[in-house]
Amino acid sequence: MAQDKTLDDLFLDTLKDIYFAEKQILKALPKMAKAAEDPQLKAGFEEHRDQTEGHVARLEEIFEMLGQPARSKTCDAILGIIEEGKDIMEEFKGSPALDAGLISSAQAVEHYEMARYGTLKAWANLLGRSDAAKLLDATYKEELATDKKLSQLATSSDNAKAAA
Amino acid sequence: MAQDKTLDDLFLDTLKDIYFAEKQILKALPKMAKAAEDPQLKAGFEEHRDQTEGHVARLEEIFEMLGQPARSKTCDAILGIIEEGKDIMEEFKGSPALDAGLISSAQAVEHYEMARYGTLKAWANLLGRSDAAKLLDATYKEELATDKKLSQLATSSDNAKAAA
Repeated sequence: MAQDKTLDDLFLDTLKDIYFAEKQILKALPKMAKAAEDPQLKAGFEEHRDQTEGHVARLEEIFEMLGQPARSKTCDAILGIIEEGKDIMEEFKGSPALDAGLISSAQAVEHYEMARYGTLKAWANLLGRSDAAKLLDATYKEELATDKKLSQLATSSDNAKAAA
Repeated sequence: MAQDKTLDDLFLDTLKDIYFAEKQILKALPKMAKAAEDPQLKAGFEEHRDQTEGHVARLEEIFEMLGQPARSKTCDAILGIIEEGKDIMEEFKGSPALDAGLISSAQAVEHYEMARYGTLKAWANLLGRSDAAKLLDATYKEELATDKKLSQLATSSDNAKAAA
């Protein structure tokens, strides 16, 4: 019954959602790295792929803290965001604006993650799970830092000159 | 040909994407306001609905600046984000955690918009369209402020007590 559901259930559901999302991102990042023209952007995607493995491991640690199996729940949001990224890769292949499009797609991914980790961290604190909140905050901060780096790359002179 | 595409094309495509998204959000917000239990949250969704009308109008102004018809392009990302919000509304109907779920969905929407408006603003500046950049920045700041308000509501004592 929906009425019996609590914040614990919502927390667990959302953990499963972001667990699914992180695994999709893990598959998408090597494709984005391969497509990127700018060596700095390419390296950034590769580095973030490694970081994402750590995010998956942290989520598994949280499932364990809660005494729950690590399970995914299909996340339509990340599927839609990644689908749009694929469209841009196809439509702008060989174009000087391709890297700008890849950065834009990656920032949509980062923002989705920031929203989810921000929410999960707040709920973990409400539920008295400071152990989980600490891990969620660590990932949140890495997503935020990645988004900032992408913003810098988007307006750095080489990218700007190539695209505009 | 993809090779002939420029940042102008990517900018226009992304404008169409967020134009589609804003219109979907305009339809979703009254449903979220109706579902919300907390009067402050309900009022917040209603207020943001009015603000969203302004965002649509600003986008139409930018299309006009560019001499382009205001057209939408299906945005899979926002469809996925809204779909997840609907699932939460159904699964948590009548639960004390419903408002927490609504806030979480709304923050995923805000973050998608922040990503897109942040990107569009950067591109407008690269393309020398400071007129468009000014309007995009105004909407960006409103989305950011809405996200902050939602974060406050998520952890305010009434919501916290109800959910935890």
